[in-house]
Amino acid sequence: MELMIPLKGREGGPFYQQIYQFIKEEIRHGNLAPGERLPSTRVLAENLKVSRSTTQMAYEQLLSEGYIEASPCRGYFVAEIEALVEVKEQPSGSFVPREEEKKAGFAVDFSPRGIDLDSFPFNLWRKISRNILVDDNKALFLNGDPQGEYALRQAIGNYLHGARGVQCSPDQIIIGAGSEYLLMLLTLVLGRGKVIAMENPTYKQAYRVLTSQGFQVFPVNMDRYGMNPGELKALGGDGADVAYIMPSHQYPMGIVMSVKRRQELLAWANSREGRYLIEDDYDSEFRYKGKPVPALQGMDQKGRVIYMGTFSKSIAPAIRIGFMVLPKKLMEEYKRRAGFFSSTVSRLDQNILYQFLTEGHYERHLNRMRSVYKAKHDCLLGGLKEFEQSFSVQGEHAGLHVLLTDRNKERSEDELVESAAAQGAGVYGLSRYFIHPEHNPYPSTVLLGYANLSGEEIKDGLRRLKAAWGIQ
Amino acid sequence: MELMIPLKGREGGPFYQQIYQFIKEEIRHGNLAPGERLPSTRVLAENLKVSRSTTQMAYEQLLSEGYIEASPCRGYFVAEIEALVEVKEQPSGSFVPREEEKKAGFAVDFSPRGIDLDSFPFNLWRKISRNILVDDNKALFLNGDPQGEYALRQAIGNYLHGARGVQCSPDQIIIGAGSEYLLMLLTLVLGRGKVIAMENPTYKQAYRVLTSQGFQVFPVNMDRYGMNPGELKALGGDGADVAYIMPSHQYPMGIVMSVKRRQELLAWANSREGRYLIEDDYDSEFRYKGKPVPALQGMDQKGRVIYMGTFSKSIAPAIRIGFMVLPKKLMEEYKRRAGFFSSTVSRLDQNILYQFLTEGHYERHLNRMRSVYKAKHDCLLGGLKEFEQSFSVQGEHAGLHVLLTDRNKERSEDELVESAAAQGAGVYGLSRYFIHPEHNPYPSTVLLGYANLSGEEIKDGLRRLKAAWGIQ
Repeated sequence: MELMIPLKGREGGPFYQQIYQFIKEEIRHGNLAPGERLPSTRVLAENLKVSRSTTQMAYEQLLSEGYIEASPCRGYFVAEIEALVEVKEQPSGSFVPREEEKKAGFAVDFSPRGIDLDSFPFNLWRKISRNILVDDNKALFLNGDPQGEYALRQAIGNYLHGARGVQCSPDQIIIGAGSEYLLMLLTLVLGRGKVIAMENPTYKQAYRVLTSQGFQVFPVNMDRYGMNPGELKALGGDGADVAYIMPSHQYPMGIVMSVKRRQELLAWANSREGRYLIEDDYDSEFRYKGKPVPALQGMDQKGRVIYMGTFSKSIAPAIRIGFMVLPKKLMEEYKRRAGFFSSTVSRLDQNILYQFLTEGHYERHLNRMRSVYKAKHDCLLGGLKEFEQSFSVQGEHAGLHVLLTDRNKERSEDELVESAAAQGAGVYGLSRYFIHPEHNPYPSTVLLGYANLSGEEIKDGLRRLKAAWGIQ
Repeated sequence: MELMIPLKGREGGPFYQQIYQFIKEEIRHGNLAPGERLPSTRVLAENLKVSRSTTQMAYEQLLSEGYIEASPCRGYFVAEIEALVEVKEQPSGSFVPREEEKKAGFAVDFSPRGIDLDSFPFNLWRKISRNILVDDNKALFLNGDPQGEYALRQAIGNYLHGARGVQCSPDQIIIGAGSEYLLMLLTLVLGRGKVIAMENPTYKQAYRVLTSQGFQVFPVNMDRYGMNPGELKALGGDGADVAYIMPSHQYPMGIVMSVKRRQELLAWANSREGRYLIEDDYDSEFRYKGKPVPALQGMDQKGRVIYMGTFSKSIAPAIRIGFMVLPKKLMEEYKRRAGFFSSTVSRLDQNILYQFLTEGHYERHLNRMRSVYKAKHDCLLGGLKEFEQSFSVQGEHAGLHVLLTDRNKERSEDELVESAAAQGAGVYGLSRYFIHPEHNPYPSTVLLGYANLSGEEIKDGLRRLKAAWGIQ
């Protein structure tokens, strides 16, 4: 057969591409039938007055996309193609315009998850990142250590030792893109099918991650010292393998776990091989009375505590850098079961954080934030004095939120939330933090966060709450 | 009882802390016994000639750490503590010095995983990141969209449509910290206990992630068009639920899957509800003959293709940004099962990449890299002509590595690798890419990557290989 290919000259694109395009269309439209033999590249080149390499390139492309097949010594043939499939033009309007950032819609939002970014050291962060991006830092763009850069792990280990009393070597630290990812990784390290006890109420995001990984979660109630050890021991079956706790400042209850309770939980972990405590130290940096309580991990003599922390609260959520400290025995499991996972944090970002930590900026930043949050905390608690007749306050010694309970249980949680919302103030019911909200024993308690609010906003918000709840 | 606390004056730290420290030590050393009653804060303040608030702060700290307990109206008592536990001083030397970056130890390392960073646009990256870090960009440090920033998803969608023929809206794109993390997330979306067919040999890192998540993996052999559909259909039991394939450039075989084979695999996926293809398009950007073959995803009419890509090869591994495009039906599953996971990529980094894509830098960078890699590719293949008598070359039309096979199978893979290593050249045996290396039907094949080598280094390496393998 002879192919009449109407070449358009150079304005139609490279010749090889015009030839490729033409033959492809002929095959797609059935004008060239499966099995049909194509002219040789030499003959086609002569017919079209193009070079042999041009027709060869066109055929190569057709071959590689499977439109034609080559048979040694016999030539080129149209391939058998089941259906004609075309890359369609994109329908217009399929890219919707950028959505506006969602807003809660409250005049004053006492969200317990906010943080204050007004004091974020933008200039410093910019300066560090600029200094790091110099030409001879090429290695920063290569794959780094799966556990995270050694130097950063060392800096984090030093910080944790000095500020939190954590005992570890950098070899036990794993850096990852946020606590959820690290928790996911931890489930691999612990092995499938583990039973986890969690404080009830608890940090629901951790609960979701753990259940998504197939872990069975038992909620365990708390008294005023922390997770109830009697209830933990009395769990059915073989009991729990792991207990997930927040000793420094329980979320959402705001309880600081007593030393005695810490010891009881450690004793529980020590009482059976393979039992562990996960210590989530998510906002230990902020404490308004006395000095910070050291981490439970520092009390652990037998390698039973998995320590998890993050820079989301203390620097910014978008930094997306968290870390966990594994007991030595679990480090072996990590290497065996999950050591092949590459680090999820860019080496560049690790380096910025490293400089931030080792040049003393982090400590200064924390000190600044402590006084910023202390002022907001005092403003909120000062204003809440007027609520004393009807409401009690809990969890006010640490963290970035407090709990407010209607003493007389006159109004349900929903009524408190809804009447506040009607006045433009966002407060958050405690029920949402329960694994089984219907078992919430505090029917009239709401959370108030203040990290993201100015003093004026806090006062405005409290005025709204007074109006909402009929406080004189 | 009366406490004799030897206050040291201001040089010993704040009074409240000295009091706290003293009482804590007394309890730890058993000088204050459990149940013993402490003086009231008023009495202690009078005895020590300090203010009442000082003794209150000390007691608060002891209370919060659980060393003492408060009984309403009766006063403060030493708590029952099971064991005396102290945060130990860190043993010196537990922080080992920073390890040197590991080097393969070859004079010339033909690693197939390298990339060329000499052409990385450092100045540009620095400029973009500096511009983004201006003070009014505070929102960048807040938590972003779990799927990744909408604007970046839009930019990636546009790029994928134009360059790869991928059909999707930004709503179907999920951005994450690397392909391993995204694959982990995908296993949640697909649901536990799925059976996955993988090309054999394959990208072992994906194999490790999938098996770590409890998926059963069946290796399926390839012919020269790609994964063997007959073998895929003949899998035992209910067969596979998902097939993981690399149509654009199979790793490590370098095969470009034919259109016909793509259709056969699509037909397989379409033939049963809940079947999917995972298209790993990891290095589709680099192709040396003809224009790039469009993605298989663009041929998919029924929402059966999950498309995965990364910027690790095309920009830099340390960027740690990958993406996946889910069919609409799987997006519903994603929202239900994994939508609560926060994004693992910092919003700042997403914004840098967004600017890099939308300002045309990415396209220019790719064009530059294509010609850089083409030159290296041609240099390698030119040099390999001298090996023709004894070795055949495969996979040379795309990607960043080729395969070299001893035609006469005179030397085993191990012999090839070891004799090369003895001459200072690193080449990599094909066996390591097989799920069951003992079934490797290519006993004398090695991989040679060239992305990270200069022309001189390639020539030097080839000289070493000639010496190693006795080529004249």
